[in-house]
Amino acid sequence: MPFDFRRTHRLDALREKDQDREVTLSGWVDRRRDHGGLIFIDLRDRFGVTQLVLDPELIDEAKDLRSEWVISIKGVVKKRKEGMINPKLLTGEIEVAVSALHILSKAKTPPFSICDEEIDTNEELRLKYRFLDIRRGKIQENLVKRHQAMHLIRNFLHDQGFLELTTPILGKSTPEGARDYLVPSRIYPGSFFALPQSPQLFKQLFMVAGMDRYFQIAQCFRDEDLRADRQPEFTQIDVEMSFETEDVLMSIMENMIKALFENQRDVKITLPFKRMSHKEAMDRYGTDKPDLRFEMALVEISDIVKESAFSVFLDALNNEGIVKAIVIKGGSDLSRKSIDDYTSFVGHLGIKGLAWMKFQEGKLTSNIVKFFPESVQKDLIERANIEENDLIFMIADEKSKTNQALDHLRRKIASDRNLIDEERLEFLWVTDFPLFEWSEEEGRLTSVHHPFTSPIDEDLPLLDTDPSSVRSSGYDMVLNGYEIGGGSKRIHNLELQSKIFKLLGISEKEQKSRFGFFLDALSYGAPPHLGMAFGLDRLMMIICKTDSIRDVIAFPKTQKSADLMLDCPSNVGKRQLNELKLSIEN
Amino acid sequence: MPFDFRRTHRLDALREKDQDREVTLSGWVDRRRDHGGLIFIDLRDRFGVTQLVLDPELIDEAKDLRSEWVISIKGVVKKRKEGMINPKLLTGEIEVAVSALHILSKAKTPPFSICDEEIDTNEELRLKYRFLDIRRGKIQENLVKRHQAMHLIRNFLHDQGFLELTTPILGKSTPEGARDYLVPSRIYPGSFFALPQSPQLFKQLFMVAGMDRYFQIAQCFRDEDLRADRQPEFTQIDVEMSFETEDVLMSIMENMIKALFENQRDVKITLPFKRMSHKEAMDRYGTDKPDLRFEMALVEISDIVKESAFSVFLDALNNEGIVKAIVIKGGSDLSRKSIDDYTSFVGHLGIKGLAWMKFQEGKLTSNIVKFFPESVQKDLIERANIEENDLIFMIADEKSKTNQALDHLRRKIASDRNLIDEERLEFLWVTDFPLFEWSEEEGRLTSVHHPFTSPIDEDLPLLDTDPSSVRSSGYDMVLNGYEIGGGSKRIHNLELQSKIFKLLGISEKEQKSRFGFFLDALSYGAPPHLGMAFGLDRLMMIICKTDSIRDVIAFPKTQKSADLMLDCPSNVGKRQLNELKLSIEN
Repeated sequence: MPFDFRRTHRLDALREKDQDREVTLSGWVDRRRDHGGLIFIDLRDRFGVTQLVLDPELIDEAKDLRSEWVISIKGVVKKRKEGMINPKLLTGEIEVAVSALHILSKAKTPPFSICDEEIDTNEELRLKYRFLDIRRGKIQENLVKRHQAMHLIRNFLHDQGFLELTTPILGKSTPEGARDYLVPSRIYPGSFFALPQSPQLFKQLFMVAGMDRYFQIAQCFRDEDLRADRQPEFTQIDVEMSFETEDVLMSIMENMIKALFENQRDVKITLPFKRMSHKEAMDRYGTDKPDLRFEMALVEISDIVKESAFSVFLDALNNEGIVKAIVIKGGSDLSRKSIDDYTSFVGHLGIKGLAWMKFQEGKLTSNIVKFFPESVQKDLIERANIEENDLIFMIADEKSKTNQALDHLRRKIASDRNLIDEERLEFLWVTDFPLFEWSEEEGRLTSVHHPFTSPIDEDLPLLDTDPSSVRSSGYDMVLNGYEIGGGSKRIHNLELQSKIFKLLGISEKEQKSRFGFFLDALSYGAPPHLGMAFGLDRLMMIICKTDSIRDVIAFPKTQKSADLMLDCPSNVGKRQLNELKLSIEN
Repeated sequence: MPFDFRRTHRLDALREKDQDREVTLSGWVDRRRDHGGLIFIDLRDRFGVTQLVLDPELIDEAKDLRSEWVISIKGVVKKRKEGMINPKLLTGEIEVAVSALHILSKAKTPPFSICDEEIDTNEELRLKYRFLDIRRGKIQENLVKRHQAMHLIRNFLHDQGFLELTTPILGKSTPEGARDYLVPSRIYPGSFFALPQSPQLFKQLFMVAGMDRYFQIAQCFRDEDLRADRQPEFTQIDVEMSFETEDVLMSIMENMIKALFENQRDVKITLPFKRMSHKEAMDRYGTDKPDLRFEMALVEISDIVKESAFSVFLDALNNEGIVKAIVIKGGSDLSRKSIDDYTSFVGHLGIKGLAWMKFQEGKLTSNIVKFFPESVQKDLIERANIEENDLIFMIADEKSKTNQALDHLRRKIASDRNLIDEERLEFLWVTDFPLFEWSEEEGRLTSVHHPFTSPIDEDLPLLDTDPSSVRSSGYDMVLNGYEIGGGSKRIHNLELQSKIFKLLGISEKEQKSRFGFFLDALSYGAPPHLGMAFGLDRLMMIICKTDSIRDVIAFPKTQKSADLMLDCPSNVGKRQLNELKLSIEN
C-alpha cells in the first residue's frame, strides 16, 4: 500500500481549534531546525507554512531531510506552548506532531535560496531556474494575481455580452512588417506565415461578420529591439463592439478597470475618469500620458519673455521655438549643484540650457534676471503663479523637444522631492489626438494610432484641405503616467478607408495586396464599430507594484529575447531546414 | 447632429407587449419585399430578425436598399394584423412602422446568400469570404457556443482552485521535432524558436514550482500532413495538479465534462463514467476508443475454430494470427451483394477475406459451414450467442489488423443498420494502456502516451525484465468513439524518468540537450502530480453536431494548411529574409 499523500489541509489552514485533529500534510521543507533532540520542520506550499515536530523515533528516517525536499506526513495538531506562538504565521498557534513521514522527492541544494527571498539573486540565474524562482513567494503571488485579473476581466466582459473569440496565431506577413515573426511553411516551401502583432483586423472582421461584441485575451508578438519593459510576446485585452458610441465603450472600460483595481488593490475608484484633450495634455504636461498624481503643470511664457533682452530665449523664438516653464514650490532651497545636475539631465535630452530664477524676499533672483524688465518679471510671476521660496525652470527650444524635456524634468523633480503618493491611482482619458503625424524618416504622413482609426466627424472636410490638422476619434487610458490602453472608433466606410490609405501614401496596388480582404469586407456591409486594447502585462506590473515585466510573466524572455531556461532560440537540424527549403547564410 | 444608431432593442427582443413603443433598431437588411406600395424589410442581427414597414414617404430614401446593407431606423412597434403573425419568429407578433431611416453602409451583392443558408456553397468560397460565412447563422451560433464552453470551463476550474497560467508560444525546437513550426530569430540569426505542440513540460514545471493546480486553454501547433479533421493550430484544455491521485482528477474532469454537456445540450449525464481497461477495449471492440452507443462486441473464436477444417483459419492461427467474430442481430437478411460489399470494405483495410454464416431455421448456413464439425458449430453458437436470423462475420489475420478491421466493420454496420442514437452520449474511461509500443519504423520502443507518463506502481519491477508488458497510468476519456481527452500520472522521480528515457533509446547526451532543464527541475524537489488535456475543437464539433473542425473555428485553415481569406502562407520581402540571414533554395 503506497503512502497516501492526499492532503487533509493546505499549509495555511490549521488553527488552534484544530487541536488533536489527525491530519495529512504534504509540501516542501522550507527550513529544518534540530533542537533538544527533536527535529522542527517548516513545511511549505503556495498557501502557507506549517510547523512540524518530529519525535526521536522518526529521527533515523528524517536525518537527511533538507530544504526543498518534498515530503508527506501524518500527525496530530497540537497547540504551541505559550511563548512559542508565532503571530507572523497564519498557522502560528499550532504545530503538528508527526507520527509518519514519507519522502516524496529529494532535492539538490538550489542555486539560490527559496525561503530567504530577500537575498539578492542574479537575474540570469533566476531565469535559468525559473521553476525555482516561481517557487519563491513573490512570483507565485504575481501569477496568482494575473490569473485573478484574467478571471475577473473575462467574467466582467461576458456579463456585458462580449464573446471571447479566438483569432489565428498563424497569419499573414505584410511587406512592411519589419517586426513580424515569420513562420516558414513546410507544405508550401519558400512561403511564410507571420505571428500577429495584434488581432486588429480580425476583430474588425468579427464586427463585419455580425458578432456584435468581441473580446479576447490575446497573445501578440513583435520582433523588435527590446526595451527594458518589452517582451517579444505580450498579452492584450482586446475588445470591439458594434452600433455604439465612444461614451458607451469608455464607460464599460472604466467600469472594468475599476472592478479590476478594486479587486486587486485596497482602493476605491471614482467614475467617470477625467478626460483631457491631447492638446491640453501636451500644453500642461508636455506628454500625452501625464502622471496626475502630482500637479506641477508646465506654463508657456513665449509671449511674455519675447519682451525680455535674454538672447537665448529670443533666438529660440525667432527660430519658431517656444519658451516653457515649470515651477517648483519651495524650490529655492535647491543648491547650485542640484541646479547644475538638472541642467545636465535636460542636456542628455538635447536641451542646451536650463534657465532658472528663485523668488525670495519678494523678488526674483538669478544670474539672468537682469535681462528681464520689471514688467516682464511681473507678468512671469503672475502667469506661473510664483510664490515666495519657489523656483522656476525655463526651457527655450523647438516645441516638441521642449515638451519632452520638461515632461522628463517634471517627473524627475517629483520623484526627487517625494511628491508622488505611490498608493494613489490617477486615471485619465486622453482624447482628440491628431489623426496623422509627419514622419521625417519615411517622408510621409503616418497614423498616430493605426490606419483604421476614424477621424472625428466634424474634421472630415479637413482631410481634403489640411489633413495634418484632422483630429482622430482615438482615446488612450492613462494611469500614473503610463498608457495602459488605447482605442478608437473605426472607419466602417470603404471610401473613407481608401482615402486614409491614400493620404498615408499607400498605393492602390499596395492596398489591395496588404489589405484586400479587409477592404472587401468593408464593401459587404460593415456596421459602425469601435474598440480598445489594454496591455495586460503593464496592468499587472502596476497591480503587482513591480518595475519589471518579467516579474508578471511565468516564463519570460530576457531583454535580448532569449529564453535562458529552455536555452533558445537554438540551432535546428539540417533535415528540418531542408524540408523548409531554407538555408542559413554565413 | 449625426443619426443616433444606438439600439434600444436587439432584433429578437420586441413582443406584443411593446406595442406603441418608440424604438431605434440597427442591423443588416436580410430580405426586402415591396407590396401594396409599402416596403417590408426583415432586419437582422445575430440575435434575431424584426420586420420593418416603410411607408410611402420613405420610399425615395429606401428605393435602393438591398440585402446586407446596414441600416438604422427609428419607428413605432405595431401589432401585426391577424393572419400576418409569424409563429416561427420570436418577434413574429409585431412589426415596426419606420419613421426615420439612415443608411450606415451599403453592400455589394455577396458571393453567396447570407439569408438562405441552406443553399450549398463551395467551401473555398466560404473560407475566402469567412466574414460573410460567419454572418450566416450556423457559424455564428457555433462561435457563441465555443465562447460559452470556454467560459463554463474556466469558471468550473477556477472554482476548483485551478489557476490559468499562460505558457510561451515562442519555445524551443527539439532535434526530432519534425512537426515543429519554426520561428527564425532576428536578434540571433540562424537560430530558431519553435511553436509548442503542447504545454506539457511547462505545466509539469508549474507543479515543480509549487503552483499546485494549473489550467490553460492553450493554442498548440503541429505542422503535419493534414487529415480531414486536423488544423495546424488547435486548442487544448490543459490541466495539471499536485498531491492528488488519479481518482480525484478523473472525478473533477468528469464533473467538468458533465457540466459542459448539460449546459450545451439537453441531456442528463450520470456519473461516474464507465471504466474499461485498454485490454478489454481491444478485445471487445478492437479499438482503444470504442463507441458504446451500440453493443455488437467482438468475440475471439481462435480456440474454437482451430478444431475446424477451414484452412484459411488454420493458416492464420499457425502464423500467430487470431480469429475473431462479430454477430449482426437479425443480419440473415443481408444479401449476397451486401456481404460482398463488406468483404471489399475490409479488403481496403488489408484483410483478405470475410467469412460469414447465417443462422436460419436452427442451423448455420454458408458456403464454408461444411468445414466446421457439428461440435465446433455448437461452441461457436454458444460463444457468440448466435440466435435465429443472426449473421456472423469472421476474420482471421494478424491480431492488430483483425482488431482494426473489425472495429471499422462494427461501426460501418451500426451506421448502415441505423443502430446509433445520435442524441446519446456514451462516455468511457479507458485505462491501463501499455506504457510502450514497439515501433517497427524506428526500431525501438516508443511511448504510447508520452515519455513523462508514469508506469503503474505494481508494474515497476517489470521495467527491468519485460518493459513491453508494463502498464501506464494513462487514462483516455472517450465519447461516442472519439478520444476527447487523455492524461496520466507523471513521473516525478529523476531516476525513473532517466530510466524511461533509456528504455526509449534516448542517450544521456540527447536527454541533456533535449530535456536538460526538465531533468534539472526534477532534481530540485518535484511533487507527485498528474494531469489531462482535452481537444477543445473536437469537443465543440460534438457539441455543435458537425463533422468539420472548420465549422467550430473562427478563421480556420484549409486541409492543406492555407488561409484562403488572408491568402497565406505567402512570400516575404528580401529585406526580411536578409535580416534573418535566410535564403530560399530553389
